[in-house]
Parts: sequence; structure tokens; C-alpha cells
Amino acid sequence: MTKQALVQNIREKQSFLCVGLDTDSTKIPHHLLAYQDPVFEFNKAVIDATKDLCVAYKPNLAFYESLGPKGWKSLEKTLEYIPENIFTIADAKRGDIGNTSKMYAKTFFEYMNFDAVTVAPYMGKDSITPFLEFDDKWVIVLGLTSNEGSADFQYLKDQDGRSLYEKVITKTQEWGNPNNLMYVIGATHPETFAEIRALAKDFFFLVPGVGAQGGDMNAVFKNGKNDEIGLLVNSSRDIIYAGNGPDFQEEIRRKAQQMQKSMSDLMA
Amino acid sequence: MTKQALVQNIREKQSFLCVGLDTDSTKIPHHLLAYQDPVFEFNKAVIDATKDLCVAYKPNLAFYESLGPKGWKSLEKTLEYIPENIFTIADAKRGDIGNTSKMYAKTFFEYMNFDAVTVAPYMGKDSITPFLEFDDKWVIVLGLTSNEGSADFQYLKDQDGRSLYEKVITKTQEWGNPNNLMYVIGATHPETFAEIRALAKDFFFLVPGVGAQGGDMNAVFKNGKNDEIGLLVNSSRDIIYAGNGPDFQEEIRRKAQQMQKSMSDLMA
Repeated sequence: MTKQALVQNIREKQSFLCVGLDTDSTKIPHHLLAYQDPVFEFNKAVIDATKDLCVAYKPNLAFYESLGPKGWKSLEKTLEYIPENIFTIADAKRGDIGNTSKMYAKTFFEYMNFDAVTVAPYMGKDSITPFLEFDDKWVIVLGLTSNEGSADFQYLKDQDGRSLYEKVITKTQEWGNPNNLMYVIGATHPETFAEIRALAKDFFFLVPGVGAQGGDMNAVFKNGKNDEIGLLVNSSRDIIYAGNGPDFQEEIRRKAQQMQKSMSDLMA
Repeated sequence: MTKQALVQNIREKQSFLCVGLDTDSTKIPHHLLAYQDPVFEFNKAVIDATKDLCVAYKPNLAFYESLGPKGWKSLEKTLEYIPENIFTIADAKRGDIGNTSKMYAKTFFEYMNFDAVTVAPYMGKDSITPFLEFDDKWVIVLGLTSNEGSADFQYLKDQDGRSLYEKVITKTQEWGNPNNLMYVIGATHPETFAEIRALAKDFFFLVPGVGAQGGDMNAVFKNGKNDEIGLLVNSSRDIIYAGNGPDFQEEIRRKAQQMQKSMSDLMA
């Protein structure tokens, strides 16, 4: 998907919501376990309940891999079920030496046909550039993540006083551009959003950590938006586990509506 | 597997060789493509030809994921085929927020029963510690990798003049110990091996980059060994693609024997 198409979807739906499909078979409503593929049935229900309210879906690979080959099948079926005009992100946090990153890129972009994949920057240029060589596909590099452990290495300052995450965000711009590269910036660091936006004016940020992890959407929007909005705010657990009974789909929709409404108000 | 058992295997086999099962179905001998599961047939042949010469096998997940559910099945069968007393490493380079890393840990240690998994450190403590909570299982953290891109971020120096990779190697020792934690240290940086050994005296290093990537085993051994050897030197392409004809298994064995012989000479 092109950036233009993504921005148009955001404007039309008045939403920059990404729904995280972190589907844990121990947490989905019990009655779905009777189906042959409960994970896919659940995802189908989530997609039906939210597809007019969000602009992206982000399955986290860990949840599918934990089920082995069966999990990969559920993921493939889920991906096929997502409407064409919704942006899809493989939250895989991959990254390896050049020829191996190329295999991962082919897996996610050709075999699976995702629009984007998250990549860890530790191994540098040749671990990232193989993902940048596909038309209308995206690399989402971990910048400043939402978890507690982000403090361990990402904030390390070099001799010029610049943090590792700043280095990652500036260095990777030599390899990609706002049409094929985004950054993961956690909502749990609202104080740094304005500063990070200044480093990457035209880039989209994928923002986890609103809700369950404690991030505040208003602060993210105020400090992080750009002329094209430039944000995909992700919510996983808060939305997909909003309900657990026979009416779980309505609960999911209600929660997604709430988030979309807040976004629409912010965009007004 | 315990460290004691691993060290005993190394002494008995006079080998610290890890064979990388980076099985690319476009590179294996043509006649294997007639089998129902060519990737598994190839791995079986590699294992049969090398199991008395090596102490570890390391499948890189990228090569299996690229085949979808079928690839995961080939990987599962391969893992079952590897003799019990050989150390198995899932080269997955995973790492995510706490609850997600926990899913990955379960996948590789419980569902798949690998002895070890490689993990990227960028996301810090809660991305690594969930892997450390399994008895006799190992986390292999990326320290200084073998690829060109390692120069982009791993060498960044902080205000005390310490590199990111040094920070990673010292900080992670607060979370794990030489019985559940190893480091990936690329053979392409022989000049830094002695210095890194001083930072992590009793830890095993998984060493990629000998051979195809240009690293020198003698230098690695001289600067990197400790009292328990403390090294697993990996070779992937050099060994597994040593031959391509009907006698490919003999070629693989010949190459592995060469490497084992060099190791045995160094250990003498």
C-alpha cells in the first residue's frame, strides 16, 4: 500500500487505529474452541466487528508460532480475510544478516503478502535494507519501544549526547524514506514524542502502548502528529479481549468505536 | 542441556563445531526434490553425515518460515531427528515485550524442545528474561554480530567510551549467568575477541562468520577460548552446500571432518 492510500483511509475513516491481533487461544471466548480453527474464528469476528473503524491490523507472530504449523495456517487465513484496503503489519521484530533478512522479507511480503513488517535494528544496515526493496511494502523499525526494558539500551547516550534510539532513527533514514519506512515509538514516552517527530518529520509512527500499557492517546496525538497525521495507534488486548461472553463481538465493537471516536475528535 | 554436558561433549568429540541448518530448497541437490519433504530429507542427510563430528545444530528459522506451515513441519521433523545429546539452537533472533517474549520462549523451549534460542537485545530486560526461566535452556544474546551492519549501532560508544555491545554483554549478566546465557560474537572481529572474553569469562560464545563470511578459526580460538573451551563455532553454507551431486553427503562429511580436525588440533 502507498502512503497516499494509507493517509486517504485515515481521512475517510477518521481513524488512525491499528488493531493488534495478538490472539491467545487461552484468552478467547470459550464457545469458539468448538470450531476447527478457533484462532481464525476469533480473528474473523474481530475483523467483522472493527473493519470500518480501523485502518490497520497487526498480528503479532509470537501468538501464531506458538501453535506450530496450525498457527501459521490460522495466520494465513486471517490475512486473506482482511479487506484489501486495510494496511497489514506482521509484528515479527525480525532482523538477521543480509541473505537471511532477505528470506524473511520474501516470507512476509511475497509468501504472506503483508504490507509491512517490524524489524529490530541491532544488526544494522544489511539486516534492514533487504526489506526495503519491495514496491509499496514497508519496514517498521523499532525506535523507542513501549516496554520497561526500552530503558536498558535505547536511552544509552553517545559522546555527542545522542541516544541510541535517536541514532537508529537518523541513521536508518539514509537507507529508507517516508514511503517505505516507519518507526515503532511507544506511547509510554509521551515526553519524547515531539523531539522524535522533529527527527523524522514525514515518517509514520506505529504507536503501541496506549491502554493496557498505560500510554495516553491525547498526548501522543498532540506531540506526534504531522500534516498527514503520521500515526498508527495500536490497541491489542484492550480491544480484542473487551468481552468474553456470547456478546464478545459487540463489546469489541464498542471498545473500537470509543477509540475511533476519540481519534475523530482529535482530528476535527 | 547443562553446561557440564555440553563441555563433556566437546571434550569427547574433540570438536566445538555447530552445523548451521540454513536449508534453502533452491540450493539443495536436485535429486532430493523428488521427495515429499526435500528440506527434511536434506537435513537428515546432513545430520547423518556430521553427527559424530559436531556438538550442536543451528537451524535458522528464516529458511523454514519462508515455506509456511510446510517449513515448520520440516523443522519439527528435523529437530526430532537430531540425536538427544547434541545441542540444538533455534536461530530466531526474537525479542519482544515481556508477555510476547514469553510466548516465543514457550514455542521454542516447550513446543519445539530446542536447547537454546538466539535473542536480539534492543528491547532490553523484559524481552530477554522470559527466556531465562526454563531449566537447562539457554538464551544466546546478540553481542557483536558477524555482518557488516554490526558497525552501524553495536560499536556506538557511550560517554564512558564503552560500546553498545559491551553494554549489552555486561548488562545482561545481571539477568542471566554462564549456565543459561551465551553470546553471539562474530568471527569477523578477531581483534575484539580477547577483550570480549575478559568481559564474559565463563560464558559460551556462539561464533558465526568463520568461512563464507571470512572469519579465521585460529584467531577465534586463540583469543576466545576459556578453560571449558567456551566456544561453539558455527559453519552453515561451507558445510551443508559442500557438494551438489549424488555424493553430496560425502562432500559434507569431508568438509565437517576438516573443521573437526582443525578444532581437535587446536584443543590438543
